[in-house]
Amino acid sequence: MPNRVYLDWNATTPLRAEARAAMVAAFDLVGNPSSVHAEGREARRLVEEARATLAAAVGAQPRNVVFTSAGTEANALALSPGLRGPSGGPVARLLVSAVEHASVLAGGRFPADKIGLIQVTRSGVVDLDQLKRELKDGPPALVSIMAANNETGAVQPVTEAASIVHEAGGLLHVDAIQALGKMPFNINSVGADLATFSAHKIGGPKGVGALALTEGISGLEPVLRGGGQELNRRAGTENIAGIAGFGAAVKAALQALPEDVKRMASLRDRLENGLRDVPGTTVFATEVARLPNTALFTAPGLKAETAVIGFDLEGIAVSSGSACSSGKVQPSHVLSAMGYDPAVAQGAARLSLGWSTEPEDINRALEAWRKLGNTLLKR
Amino acid sequence: MPNRVYLDWNATTPLRAEARAAMVAAFDLVGNPSSVHAEGREARRLVEEARATLAAAVGAQPRNVVFTSAGTEANALALSPGLRGPSGGPVARLLVSAVEHASVLAGGRFPADKIGLIQVTRSGVVDLDQLKRELKDGPPALVSIMAANNETGAVQPVTEAASIVHEAGGLLHVDAIQALGKMPFNINSVGADLATFSAHKIGGPKGVGALALTEGISGLEPVLRGGGQELNRRAGTENIAGIAGFGAAVKAALQALPEDVKRMASLRDRLENGLRDVPGTTVFATEVARLPNTALFTAPGLKAETAVIGFDLEGIAVSSGSACSSGKVQPSHVLSAMGYDPAVAQGAARLSLGWSTEPEDINRALEAWRKLGNTLLKR
Repeated sequence: MPNRVYLDWNATTPLRAEARAAMVAAFDLVGNPSSVHAEGREARRLVEEARATLAAAVGAQPRNVVFTSAGTEANALALSPGLRGPSGGPVARLLVSAVEHASVLAGGRFPADKIGLIQVTRSGVVDLDQLKRELKDGPPALVSIMAANNETGAVQPVTEAASIVHEAGGLLHVDAIQALGKMPFNINSVGADLATFSAHKIGGPKGVGALALTEGISGLEPVLRGGGQELNRRAGTENIAGIAGFGAAVKAALQALPEDVKRMASLRDRLENGLRDVPGTTVFATEVARLPNTALFTAPGLKAETAVIGFDLEGIAVSSGSACSSGKVQPSHVLSAMGYDPAVAQGAARLSLGWSTEPEDINRALEAWRKLGNTLLKR
Repeated sequence: MPNRVYLDWNATTPLRAEARAAMVAAFDLVGNPSSVHAEGREARRLVEEARATLAAAVGAQPRNVVFTSAGTEANALALSPGLRGPSGGPVARLLVSAVEHASVLAGGRFPADKIGLIQVTRSGVVDLDQLKRELKDGPPALVSIMAANNETGAVQPVTEAASIVHEAGGLLHVDAIQALGKMPFNINSVGADLATFSAHKIGGPKGVGALALTEGISGLEPVLRGGGQELNRRAGTENIAGIAGFGAAVKAALQALPEDVKRMASLRDRLENGLRDVPGTTVFATEVARLPNTALFTAPGLKAETAVIGFDLEGIAVSSGSACSSGKVQPSHVLSAMGYDPAVAQGAARLSLGWSTEPEDINRALEAWRKLGNTLLKR
């Protein structure tokens, strides 16, 4: 779209050239990776190459990486009662932070009465003291905490959480979907037992995700059953082109990471300074470590829906909280969990940047914001 | 691959030019279809166009079509306890034919003790008398019968089954994955309550499927929960490019259907006549209506694994029964269900044709078969 500024990278990113090339090349492969003939083996090779790339990037063994149809399916697969590992389990209940993605809050295969919530601080960081208390009583728990929040960008203390969880005989799942490509993430250095990823947040295609397990995790109950694909952990013919695109995107994203982080952080800081030019503007979670690309903000009287539409009419694509809903602007469950009242939770907009964001994009977003600030806000 | 002959179209087909073009065009769309901004709306439009195309092709309303990650997920979604419709339900048990795909035999969300098997005849056609008997006692059942079998090509009496099932207050799911693009299929004229489809059997990409419901079906329990995508029936960011490719493939496949059927049937007949040149060769299910593209055959002493590898070494890609497994040649559950003994069930090879199969491909396959017949078969 000509002349548009895209600042909704936490929802989905453009497809990287490397991913596009890998996908187009995969289009020529006719075989089913489960077929034993040459065409099948060629398709299999592509899948295994992508698996090895992702595994190396996040510190897992290739055999412990399961490709799925997206982050949502990867999270559903991860949240499996009965999981056990060297550090704990079998897990019989689930504890999730209150700021998790909807697909984690849904709880996977855990029944509703076996799911507990861990609250977050006013800055949107998970409350480790509450986690400790919750873990003290009851059977081993699977704990699910995201590496970084998709709305605020707040980085979560997952490494500390891992120690706490393991000490209590539980297992830790980390939704690293927003972290991958925006901060270093390694399943081993974190100490996570399971971690999930999604291609379309790092320049890969929409509709591909993955679950990585650390060595020695067992008891994973498949969500999709039938064929023996993915070592019997996920039935269904593989999205070959998508998986190839994911692999290529991982490689490109990780290579560019140090440079991208610097660039994005600098542009994000300039953006936030500019946003504050409209009196009363508040940026959330600035007092804690955040992703380098995310700015969630509000101003008195701002309505998220009006803001998103207002920006859109000015040619700027922005978001209000999570986009993973049916085209509706809904109050942010993240801001609610952080203790903000409904007016604020319905009045926050998110600008998220990416590797091709230019200074001029920031200028245009700020121009739009000043205009909107003058017309939209009740004073 | 140069000089190869691909005769494994029931496993997966080449990508149609129309699908490829649609996918490449979709690569330029950055938006998430759930986002309200222009980029999001553009992605949404693409998904809805594909949905309308598929819906029209199979006789469903667009709002009753749910895109999934493949046929396996579509089948898992379809097999949902508690489904109800104008003609019956809520279903509390599942009856599946013994020749269904592994993803249907897995039973979806029905517990193992609520799943019953309907046997097939020696020709591989579902036994409607047994179906009637099974339906007589017990609560309303969901019945799952495929439109045509992936291994033998045998067309199943799904229209008759629909009447029987509805009379008994049940619901019928039809796995139409192998039928689409190879024979006419319309959910309404069949009288199916649910039907499933897969893109990569008709020239679309691997990793996209769909479930179509007739109007008035309710109680569908999502497999993937979280976001509100697909009218709350399937959470997760949509595989935009894949869905666009699916839509384009449906359009092309349905347009070419009458011509393709004639061409494939004629080549298949020539193939089968030639196969019989090796003494003792039997083609299965020839006495019933079959897909125009499928030839499942055996010969005394043939081992499927050896045959598949033998054909492969001669440059011909063929299959042994279903490919949807982990790269292993397994005995055919379809032939076992038809009453053949294990030696036969482990000794059948499948040649399946497609829209670009040429007479020369058949010549080369037959040449290979004569050679293999002379060397492989125990006499």
